[in-house]
Amino acid sequence: MSDRFKVLEEEKVFKDPVHRYIHVRDELIWDLIGTKEFQRLRRIRQLGTTYLTFHGAEHTRFNHSLGVYEIVRRMVENLEKKIAWDPEERLVCLAAALLHDIGHGPFSHSFEKVFHTDHEQWTRAIILGNTDVHRVLTSVGGKFPKKVADVIEKTYANKLVVSLISSQIDADRMDYLLRDAFYTGVSYGNFDMERILRVMRPKEDQAVFKHSGMHAVEDYIMSRYQMYWQVYFHPVTRSAEVILSKILHRAKDLYRAGYQFKDQPKHFYTLFSGEITLADYLKLDESVILYYFQEWADEEDPILHDLCQRFMDRRLFKYVECDPGKQMSVWPELLQLFAAIGLEPEYYLVIDSSSDLPYDFYRPGEEEERLPIHLLMPGGDLRELSRESEVVEAISGKKRTDHKLYFPMDFLEDQRTYAEEKQRIIALLKAQEG
Amino acid sequence: MSDRFKVLEEEKVFKDPVHRYIHVRDELIWDLIGTKEFQRLRRIRQLGTTYLTFHGAEHTRFNHSLGVYEIVRRMVENLEKKIAWDPEERLVCLAAALLHDIGHGPFSHSFEKVFHTDHEQWTRAIILGNTDVHRVLTSVGGKFPKKVADVIEKTYANKLVVSLISSQIDADRMDYLLRDAFYTGVSYGNFDMERILRVMRPKEDQAVFKHSGMHAVEDYIMSRYQMYWQVYFHPVTRSAEVILSKILHRAKDLYRAGYQFKDQPKHFYTLFSGEITLADYLKLDESVILYYFQEWADEEDPILHDLCQRFMDRRLFKYVECDPGKQMSVWPELLQLFAAIGLEPEYYLVIDSSSDLPYDFYRPGEEEERLPIHLLMPGGDLRELSRESEVVEAISGKKRTDHKLYFPMDFLEDQRTYAEEKQRIIALLKAQEG
Amino acid sequence: MSDRFKVLEEEKVFKDPVHRYIHVRDELIWDLIGTKEFQRLRRIRQLGTTYLTFHGAEHTRFNHSLGVYEIVRRMVENLEKKIAWDPEERLVCLAAALLHDIGHGPFSHSFEKVFHTDHEQWTRAIILGNTDVHRVLTSVGGKFPKKVADVIEKTYANKLVVSLISSQIDADRMDYLLRDAFYTGVSYGNFDMERILRVMRPKEDQAVFKHSGMHAVEDYIMSRYQMYWQVYFHPVTRSAEVILSKILHRAKDLYRAGYQFKDQPKHFYTLFSGEITLADYLKLDESVILYYFQEWADEEDPILHDLCQRFMDRRLFKYVECDPGKQMSVWPELLQLFAAIGLEPEYYLVIDSSSDLPYDFYRPGEEEERLPIHLLMPGGDLRELSRESEVVEAISGKKRTDHKLYFPMDFLEDQRTYAEEKQRIIALLKAQEG
Amino acid sequence: MSDRFKVLEEEKVFKDPVHRYIHVRDELIWDLIGTKEFQRLRRIRQLGTTYLTFHGAEHTRFNHSLGVYEIVRRMVENLEKKIAWDPEERLVCLAAALLHDIGHGPFSHSFEKVFHTDHEQWTRAIILGNTDVHRVLTSVGGKFPKKVADVIEKTYANKLVVSLISSQIDADRMDYLLRDAFYTGVSYGNFDMERILRVMRPKEDQAVFKHSGMHAVEDYIMSRYQMYWQVYFHPVTRSAEVILSKILHRAKDLYRAGYQFKDQPKHFYTLFSGEITLADYLKLDESVILYYFQEWADEEDPILHDLCQRFMDRRLFKYVECDPGKQMSVWPELLQLFAAIGLEPEYYLVIDSSSDLPYDFYRPGEEEERLPIHLLMPGGDLRELSRESEVVEAISGKKRTDHKLYFPMDFLEDQRTYAEEKQRIIALLKAQEG
Repeated sequence: MSDRFKVLEEEKVFKDPVHRYIHVRDELIWDLIGTKEFQRLRRIRQLGTTYLTFHGAEHTRFNHSLGVYEIVRRMVENLEKKIAWDPEERLVCLAAALLHDIGHGPFSHSFEKVFHTDHEQWTRAIILGNTDVHRVLTSVGGKFPKKVADVIEKTYANKLVVSLISSQIDADRMDYLLRDAFYTGVSYGNFDMERILRVMRPKEDQAVFKHSGMHAVEDYIMSRYQMYWQVYFHPVTRSAEVILSKILHRAKDLYRAGYQFKDQPKHFYTLFSGEITLADYLKLDESVILYYFQEWADEEDPILHDLCQRFMDRRLFKYVECDPGKQMSVWPELLQLFAAIGLEPEYYLVIDSSSDLPYDFYRPGEEEERLPIHLLMPGGDLRELSRESEVVEAISGKKRTDHKLYFPMDFLEDQRTYAEEKQRIIALLKAQEG
Repeated sequence: MSDRFKVLEEEKVFKDPVHRYIHVRDELIWDLIGTKEFQRLRRIRQLGTTYLTFHGAEHTRFNHSLGVYEIVRRMVENLEKKIAWDPEERLVCLAAALLHDIGHGPFSHSFEKVFHTDHEQWTRAIILGNTDVHRVLTSVGGKFPKKVADVIEKTYANKLVVSLISSQIDADRMDYLLRDAFYTGVSYGNFDMERILRVMRPKEDQAVFKHSGMHAVEDYIMSRYQMYWQVYFHPVTRSAEVILSKILHRAKDLYRAGYQFKDQPKHFYTLFSGEITLADYLKLDESVILYYFQEWADEEDPILHDLCQRFMDRRLFKYVECDPGKQMSVWPELLQLFAAIGLEPEYYLVIDSSSDLPYDFYRPGEEEERLPIHLLMPGGDLRELSRESEVVEAISGKKRTDHKLYFPMDFLEDQRTYAEEKQRIIALLKAQEG
Repeated sequence: MSDRFKVLEEEKVFKDPVHRYIHVRDELIWDLIGTKEFQRLRRIRQLGTTYLTFHGAEHTRFNHSLGVYEIVRRMVENLEKKIAWDPEERLVCLAAALLHDIGHGPFSHSFEKVFHTDHEQWTRAIILGNTDVHRVLTSVGGKFPKKVADVIEKTYANKLVVSLISSQIDADRMDYLLRDAFYTGVSYGNFDMERILRVMRPKEDQAVFKHSGMHAVEDYIMSRYQMYWQVYFHPVTRSAEVILSKILHRAKDLYRAGYQFKDQPKHFYTLFSGEITLADYLKLDESVILYYFQEWADEEDPILHDLCQRFMDRRLFKYVECDPGKQMSVWPELLQLFAAIGLEPEYYLVIDSSSDLPYDFYRPGEEEERLPIHLLMPGGDLRELSRESEVVEAISGKKRTDHKLYFPMDFLEDQRTYAEEKQRIIALLKAQEG
Repeated sequence: MSDRFKVLEEEKVFKDPVHRYIHVRDELIWDLIGTKEFQRLRRIRQLGTTYLTFHGAEHTRFNHSLGVYEIVRRMVENLEKKIAWDPEERLVCLAAALLHDIGHGPFSHSFEKVFHTDHEQWTRAIILGNTDVHRVLTSVGGKFPKKVADVIEKTYANKLVVSLISSQIDADRMDYLLRDAFYTGVSYGNFDMERILRVMRPKEDQAVFKHSGMHAVEDYIMSRYQMYWQVYFHPVTRSAEVILSKILHRAKDLYRAGYQFKDQPKHFYTLFSGEITLADYLKLDESVILYYFQEWADEEDPILHDLCQRFMDRRLFKYVECDPGKQMSVWPELLQLFAAIGLEPEYYLVIDSSSDLPYDFYRPGEEEERLPIHLLMPGGDLRELSRESEVVEAISGKKRTDHKLYFPMDFLEDQRTYAEEKQRIIALLKAQEG
């Protein structure tokens, strides 16, 4: 092995509650973990606002990133027994696994929606820009950072490498299902990863799975399906997400309208103005956001003040199911009544939709086509998973969408003023759900 | 049951990865969990800086507090089968369990050392002061908050109730051993809690344990012993703690010396001046602290700047074992050399000691006497645990202390200047460890 | 409570690896467990020949029966909070749970097929006949045994009680899925039983499940589906089952043909002649069967000798998939070839089919109609599960059948004689599989 | 690798609930598992009569033997990274691990005591004698079987290999602690095996453990200590063992006295006469023994009849603690009273002692010296474990013995005859325990 690919004198391990141990023997990986950009992931939770629903889900992206690295390390170890791997290709793969989420900021989902940022662009910027991560990657070779970025962006030539990091059954999904199930305490996310890794075979441009392991793959798909609806789209989590988005939205609007904040939100300036730099972006983490939310809970603006208090003290919005078909008829009256009692509908009457496509087979020509999972049949042929599994077939290609209408029930229940209007609103909301 | 003790229409549950489910059926408990002071515990990690050693240990005091409540709930359910419990006594007990850590602030250990605060006083202040917690407790009765505070302070008349919350085998210890083992991923903290709860018997002023369950109790004591040395006193965690203390220390000294901070540390003013109020205290959480550490990493003062960068980016101090006996001889030379290379020994050459007394039997007259664990023998007699268990006997009453000397090895290895002095320091440190 | 329903002075517990503890506080249950008919279940494995595929699956029906009892005990404890239960009804329920498998003999499936016995009839006979079980049951009341038998036979008036013990989501299935997954080591059988028990509600004649727990029920159905195909119908287990059946078949035929066994198979006499008594039946357990198989491995008859050696030493038949449609064409030639090389097709060329209906909704008029699972909707309505769950809908009512052809490949590979015929057989078998 | 050391075309795996998967890639190991002598271990429980106390403990020596093999396989894989291993040495090691218990018969402990057999001699006989195991081993080389036997007998030249299989911290102990804890359901046997394997280092003639892993080793020693007293020496298990020994004893005595058994116990003839051959020995398994116990429960001899019924139906003896010092005074009267009521003291009044030495350091010159566990200190020195660990020091070298007196309480409580004598016996037994 070239001395560009240095190994540590003694293998290092991290104790991990999901994979038991995470093993590091490459100096590159060790050094990447030590960079300040990677350490920053310790201050960004893996599941955003989910900890407000499942109190155990306080784990961070640092935690998850190590897990994805470890799974890819095991995959490569297995695949090396079947096909030759160039030592650099191996490192590209491990580094991409470790760094695949490096561009995430705090509460990414909401930030991206409100500020039109994109964590994938930041990932690229961190890997290729003026960062410690970039310097460490470059130590292996000048073209190395670009290769790592390409893997994460799925433009890398070796599609097998890409498929380990991002496909419908990749190390990322495997780790987050197992890890999120572990930390939330739900039983849904469990599947036999060890078996899946054992039946994985390199084939042309992707990893495929021996037919004898089909049921383990089926079980993985079902875990994913259950986790989406039980955990990731939990309405209480979405309620917190709605409030969070509305806070960011309000602060941006106030800033643009020239509102004078008591404490200048300097971390947000370039974000508000749409000119955020990498250096500014890297300063954002959940501590900073929560610091501001606490500050803003003392602001004069009643909406910002109320929403921030709600978020900090977990006084969330309630919800009703919401059928977008029926919605139109009561919507105008609802808007009017909300305005009448002094609640701005823009902030206090929010429709949020979640949808998931648990598994999809290839449909050429579609915008975001997803590579299907292939089984390796006894004779050597490949077959797409849903043609063999009736359970997967049942859910594949079917997008399920769920709409909910969020609102501050506590305001409506407090009858000191506008009692009549509030009664009417509650009646309308109930009818809505029907 | 009096209507002062309202029960919820439908029992609520929290999914918990350690106890599976946490059950709440009393309105009081539900309302306490909803207070802003209790929600604030979501922003304070259970194990302080331990997450820098065991990346899984990102859980908060909110998480642990629910766990202690749940264990006490189960204890009371069991004990109710043996003796009569007044409904109020039951609620006092549950509320004390839930609130026993309510006074903790961020990184309590270091804060208490540097600022001479005391989380137990804050607990009392929150329970008895002008807070939501107090208002909710008062809804049960005017004397109720005082009773809850007394249980936590161990001055409550019913010693059995006290012993469930704080003794050498209480719900607090049981939960943190299980929970910290779960989140760190180590195997040491496991013991058979279900069995311990089953053999628990109310006896005079404390809970005792049927002799047939002695081995489960032994196992618990050993878990505690192992967790202390494997997790709680881990030298890497202590290294982070040392840096954290030195940051607070430096900031306080700079403030008192009239140093001009770029960004005014207003959250710290009353803390620095020793006049902190409850309202100020409740604003402190880990987000706020980490916000300032990030800010201070950009300060002019080289010590504050360096220490804060170290903490944020996890570039910790290394350590050598340190025998306080031998120490004296090399100490003056070390101090001199550190000064020579421009490293203030007060911040960069730190001795830290940990010590633990895993189990103790009663020694009257001692300052902090600890109630021993009693076994209920077949004939009805009580015997102190260490008289029956040779393993416990082996470790009981024996205080074990461990001293380590922390320092910035990276500075010493960087040979650009003062190469000779640095070599000499390293030689002295090695000799020190001997 | 009447003194007919005596409780133990102190609750007894069994340590159980699946449910942690099994709690017994009723004297009736304790006494039933102590009867010789129940203790006999310790000598009958829960999963028959499965231990030859999954070496961990060595657990017995004793083990499982305690588990079912424990689940029903918890169900009743939960339901008692919702509706009134007569103390006798409670005991009927617990006793039926404990005894539901009491009539099983060794390797029941094969025995029933070969000797036309029926474990359900034996269950009835043990409960109502001249047994210790009957005597213990009668201590509660003269009509008590009949009630217990009726629950197991599903003819009991209180259909709610029946549904706890046998329905599509009953304590029996819940225990065996969890237990068999635990002992085999597979991950498929896990689901959140605690949640299912929590959302269970008594409604008219059956237990229904709150809609909010639908995903836990879904997960249970999927576990069942996976366990059937991954464990219960595993082809290696079926191969052992085929050999076992053929041994019994051969021994019966030899006996009827007047064959002189070296060691008289007295335990089988009445079984062979179709006149088996309860006393004889109760003497049959797996030890007795394995004793005879070892003896018969030394018999003169080459078929009995070979099959018994195979079973004892685990030299099983191999298999090919077998499409009954294509089968006809090669079948006559296969028969002829097997005869030509001296292998009696009746014993050495065996088609075995497995089929499962993972979940079914009610189809009136069908022979073995299965009560569907109902969800309790927010408004109070009931809806059949597959109408709400698309995953369950996908697999419900669909019977899946799998046919395999078993044969002694080792004989065919041993080329000392009839090489040509054997080659031809192998070619035919391969063609067969397609 | 020489073609003497053939590897399988595709690695085989066994699903194992303790180690998840057991991996086999050497043809030798695969073939050994397939021998009839190894398959016979499926009919011999790992923990003898323990299943009568912990119903989950129904696992067999087959199950455990695979586990020991798997641990040694992992140890060798780790050690191969540190030192060179001859491919034959590796196979010797794996085969010895797999076969270390091959000489065990049913309920070995009792059989060895009553019939003066020795499972270690049988192990040697199976490996070196006329068996399938021997034939498979010889395929690697003529001297190969002898090497495997030498490892198991600890006379093999390479002491490092010996220490993996039998020392105070070997694969055998590691597997049985984990496995027995898993199947019984107790929590005591858990320790971090993965960590222990990671800190294992080859050093001179034994495996030693890096000092940094000391606490994992401590935890293992404590697990062993707890399992002995909580599971292996459980008084209910010992009661069943007492009855079993007495059955064998009685049958032997009757046979020698010319008693006519209804069903000739031909499997026992050579055992009774002390001339048992290997072929006879291999026919003994638990099925055969239980078959005879069932038969003997119908014998005329009242003692054999009673003891067998007790064993089959689990009506065990009760016990009192028994202080051998005090014993002498009441013993003669007890003997007299037992005789008076017609209970032969030889069978119905049995003292049984258990003792364990949880860990021992080397004491030269002692009969059964035990190699101590050594820690590898940072500087490279070795230190004996108990000099570093105060917990281990506390229990090391201390033999703990426990005496109990077993007797048929049910006979004494049945007051139909000899009421007075029975009362007196019970009084004496109670005084005894005092």
